[in-house]
Amino acid sequence: MNGKLIGIGVGPGDPELISLKAINILKEIDVVICPEAREGKGSFAFEISKPYIGESAEILNLTFPMVYDRDQLTESWKSNADKIEEVVNSGKSVAFVTLGDPAVYSTYMYIVPMMIERGVTVETIPGITSFCSVAATANIPLTTWEETLGIVPLQKDLTTAKKALDEFDNVVIMKPSHGSRELAHELVERGLEDKFVMISKVSTGEQNIITDIEVLKNEKVPYLSTMIVKRKGF
Amino acid sequence: MNGKLIGIGVGPGDPELISLKAINILKEIDVVICPEAREGKGSFAFEISKPYIGESAEILNLTFPMVYDRDQLTESWKSNADKIEEVVNSGKSVAFVTLGDPAVYSTYMYIVPMMIERGVTVETIPGITSFCSVAATANIPLTTWEETLGIVPLQKDLTTAKKALDEFDNVVIMKPSHGSRELAHELVERGLEDKFVMISKVSTGEQNIITDIEVLKNEKVPYLSTMIVKRKGF
Repeated sequence: MNGKLIGIGVGPGDPELISLKAINILKEIDVVICPEAREGKGSFAFEISKPYIGESAEILNLTFPMVYDRDQLTESWKSNADKIEEVVNSGKSVAFVTLGDPAVYSTYMYIVPMMIERGVTVETIPGITSFCSVAATANIPLTTWEETLGIVPLQKDLTTAKKALDEFDNVVIMKPSHGSRELAHELVERGLEDKFVMISKVSTGEQNIITDIEVLKNEKVPYLSTMIVKRKGF
Repeated sequence: MNGKLIGIGVGPGDPELISLKAINILKEIDVVICPEAREGKGSFAFEISKPYIGESAEILNLTFPMVYDRDQLTESWKSNADKIEEVVNSGKSVAFVTLGDPAVYSTYMYIVPMMIERGVTVETIPGITSFCSVAATANIPLTTWEETLGIVPLQKDLTTAKKALDEFDNVVIMKPSHGSRELAHELVERGLEDKFVMISKVSTGEQNIITDIEVLKNEKVPYLSTMIVKRKGF
């Protein structure tokens, strides 16, 4: 595993919901990136991976600020890509751990094209998504038969969520923490107040299952939350 | 793990893309269901699980015919639910293995409400979906930033696929084997002929990556195929 970047999906939170492939790579890897939102803040994806990382592995803390300014983000992606390139070019294997699956709203995927452009070998290991874990925890299907499934991030004005609720049988709303009150009212308006399940910190010791619309209306929703809405009910 | 049904997502095909949790359960389970489309045909989900199943486990072959007649299907689900209930009520733990994730178009999820109705304890272990594995193999995101993702099964008349391609930034088309030619023409008509990737038997030794629209137009597509269309390109 020399001179290569490996993106690893570490799953939704339970350290057992990581793949055997991820574990085998983490055991042998030279360097593991700990992607932090702020310097020193640590990373949940890194915490999940920790038990599997080999003793001789180096940890590389990289800061990826959570801002909405695209220029600022691109700047930070480029500067982190520089650091990763340097390590990879010294012949080391580098793991970039991401919560859930790397292909679903992850920072890692902004780095990948930059690395490929620079001639770096990239490999990606898929992971279990939060929405699959939420469905499993609730023992419900995300989608069956000829039904459709829409996956959208919650935006302040609900535009995207509304479109998905118009068009799709089942809808996953990612990160509904900001705008959860407005979302609750939208669900009531559509008669969907008993057709949703939202789980915060799914599969962890702090897991919280919310199916009561009043709770959604009134309580603060943690950042790591995922909602499934089933328009035809459960 | 006495007297309980556990649905287990075994991932997309590579036996290493199964979770540690699934492996630990399969080691200790009393009975493993091998869900077959035809008696004696075997099951790919079972093949993936096999290396991890404890030596003393019993194998229970259950036939789930692949037909489109809903009455016939319901009949087979009920009769299989009867058999599972009997085993669970004898105090045994029963694993129902499913390809990919149990919440995404799986037969297991038709059995779950029947078991819950009968008072059987049900637990579901999520798995890595085929579409996450396709994205990982291609090193591309399924969805980023404020983009949306639609997941649809391919129907003969393309109605659902077309609606998804109208409305969503990224579209996963599940099981495009029947109707792949029509789908190819639809992609060309929309100028999306170089904005898709389809992988058959993803993550296995027989994996086949198709990005050439001519191949999609002319060649037979295997049943276990998944397509990602990115309307904004790669």
